[in-house]
Amino acid sequence: MAFGWIDEQARARRRAGLVRTLRPRPAGSPLLDLASNDYLGLARHPEIVEGAAEAARRWGGGSTGSRLVTGTTELHAELERELADFCGFEAALVFSSGYAANLAAVTALAPHGSLIVSDAGNHASLIDGCRLARGTTQVVEHAEPEAVRKALSARPGPAVVVSDTVFSVDGDAAPLAELAFVCREFGAGLIVDDAHGLGVLGTGGRGAAQAARLAGAPDTVVTVTLSKSLGSQGGAVLGPAGVIDHLVNTARTFIFDTGLAPAAAGAALAALRLLRREPERAARARAVATALYDRLTAEGHEAVRPDAAVVSVRAPSADRAVRWAADCRAAGVAVGCFRPPSVPDGISRLRLTARADLTDEQIGRAVRVIGETRP
Amino acid sequence: MAFGWIDEQARARRRAGLVRTLRPRPAGSPLLDLASNDYLGLARHPEIVEGAAEAARRWGGGSTGSRLVTGTTELHAELERELADFCGFEAALVFSSGYAANLAAVTALAPHGSLIVSDAGNHASLIDGCRLARGTTQVVEHAEPEAVRKALSARPGPAVVVSDTVFSVDGDAAPLAELAFVCREFGAGLIVDDAHGLGVLGTGGRGAAQAARLAGAPDTVVTVTLSKSLGSQGGAVLGPAGVIDHLVNTARTFIFDTGLAPAAAGAALAALRLLRREPERAARARAVATALYDRLTAEGHEAVRPDAAVVSVRAPSADRAVRWAADCRAAGVAVGCFRPPSVPDGISRLRLTARADLTDEQIGRAVRVIGETRP
Ligand SMILES: Cc1ncc(COP(=O)(O)O)c(C=O)c1O
Ligand SMILES: Cc1ncc(COP(=O)(O)O)c(C=O)c1O
Repeated sequence: MAFGWIDEQARARRRAGLVRTLRPRPAGSPLLDLASNDYLGLARHPEIVEGAAEAARRWGGGSTGSRLVTGTTELHAELERELADFCGFEAALVFSSGYAANLAAVTALAPHGSLIVSDAGNHASLIDGCRLARGTTQVVEHAEPEAVRKALSARPGPAVVVSDTVFSVDGDAAPLAELAFVCREFGAGLIVDDAHGLGVLGTGGRGAAQAARLAGAPDTVVTVTLSKSLGSQGGAVLGPAGVIDHLVNTARTFIFDTGLAPAAAGAALAALRLLRREPERAARARAVATALYDRLTAEGHEAVRPDAAVVSVRAPSADRAVRWAADCRAAGVAVGCFRPPSVPDGISRLRLTARADLTDEQIGRAVRVIGETRP
Repeated sequence: MAFGWIDEQARARRRAGLVRTLRPRPAGSPLLDLASNDYLGLARHPEIVEGAAEAARRWGGGSTGSRLVTGTTELHAELERELADFCGFEAALVFSSGYAANLAAVTALAPHGSLIVSDAGNHASLIDGCRLARGTTQVVEHAEPEAVRKALSARPGPAVVVSDTVFSVDGDAAPLAELAFVCREFGAGLIVDDAHGLGVLGTGGRGAAQAARLAGAPDTVVTVTLSKSLGSQGGAVLGPAGVIDHLVNTARTFIFDTGLAPAAAGAALAALRLLRREPERAARARAVATALYDRLTAEGHEAVRPDAAVVSVRAPSADRAVRWAADCRAAGVAVGCFRPPSVPDGISRLRLTARADLTDEQIGRAVRVIGETRP
């Protein structure tokens, strides 16, 4: 049996209590959602939904080809212009996912002979980008500019530093200004993944790079996803026009992938326009996160102070984290549960996400349920 | 300047005449399309478009999270059931792209210590899957079962054989039955990418595996894309339930990626249902491809006999291929142009795609324009 070895692994997972199963959700879920990445509450906003539907009607169900053949519509070009403009970069390039955008940015900007300095807490897609790139990767201590400096000084030559702006597990922020400073000292490029920063950090949600005054810098490249704050699907790379042109010509996940579906481009564009009109949504998402953190720690929970909209609450063990999340769900509140092997440090936690559209009553209810179900 | 080296590469591309540029297309393009992968002409079919729009209205612009957190809706589960059923497999798992599905299948099924035997003509996404996998890759001669046998016999132990079913550049088919035979001889798994077979090959478009009587086999895994015949976006892996469960638990591009947007799932589901009702579309796409081939070769063009819906016509050089495609476009016909570095053998070609909804008049017009613009 070719795939017989899989059964033994499945048994080992069962023994360790680490089985993952899909739980399809209904359209009208009664659960209070503190698990999704819909930070601004836009995924079901009428304008975003209509942006998707209208784009499908006008452009079709799919983009019909790779971006360099038939998969670039005027809608894609419009989205790229408005994304670049909103975030303060010269140019943008849209991908079918944030994962694909990260693979593209790292592989295309870290050629053979270059050094990649990668934060130990980086997202799986950046890690896979490092693995696929021809450059040599050195993993450094989490959120530690001095470790980056040491890595860059030990190995002179072309280099890029790669980091999440907001780490997805704990919601803590990277020291962006310090990283940029170290990069400039050594002439290294900086690639940051703003998946959890776009829409939440910066003026009106313009992202972590704008907040750190790095937007538009010639040595800074930002990747984003359209699937979190923008309530859609897809990803993008933002940077100098020359870098974007380089990606168009060399990035495999750009050249050999079908263009983003028009509906996803239309939804993201509608979200971007809404965000311009209602810039207060970003600050509200941050305020909700802070309120969650303050009230949870006041009740004795151990949590990480949120730098964006993710609030991480420590659980005593993987088993008990799973049980805790299940009990919250049974009490009407959906929370995320992160545990090995999805956490770099082996520590299990509940992962709560703040949404700009949560009411104070809902925040109170969530905190109460989390407290009452505490293991 | 961190990214200064990019400019030198850009200059080299310009000197070599290998610059790629995006050309956004309008919604109402007057061009006759022989360049897209919309093989069944479904991307703008009213039922598919309405499937996308309705799903966005019901489920939102995005799926809001990774599949294991909030990104699995009942719509995703329905699509997975119907895809598995249509293609004749026990289970299916949907991804945000065919690219992501290929990365998942190869990395999850070729662990450390295993051998990956990969066809030299495989798609970039399978190649990247091989690069990311922990197993050891051996690239073998294109479409040559004897080369696969040699590779498997030289290195006993767990192994997978990886191949496109229909190769994207030339449109030729892999010798699937022979590959399966060799795999069974050595207890190896078979992973085939049916991106260009689904909707075109097999009974009513059930794909290359069904055509080769491999559907549902315990040692066969098929990947597909929702972005070609189904006129949408996304990808899927089809196989035994145990393999799909293994992917849910271990595949990084599944676990760490946002679920497919509802609109894309809805469009693909509508396409699948249409295909059940109108099974003749698959045969028509193949007949159009054969008609294009017959008429082009009758006029002295050098082309590859199509095994599915892709017709590859040889061009004298990269320069002249680009010129030829541009002249076709100027005369109202959009054709693909493949050239280095996107072709494994360095040979440039026009790439024509048959669509089930092309009329005989349109086929005639395409052949005439391609002949008149021949370099
Ligand atoms: C930090 C980070 N980067 C990238 C991604 C991938 O983006 P996408 O889901 O759009 O592929 C995610 C989550 O999905 C993420 O959390
Ligand atoms: C053979 C093959 N496999 C996989 C893919 C990737 O699928 P997708 O575009 O849905 O990511 C493509 C083309 O895009 C392809 O031609």
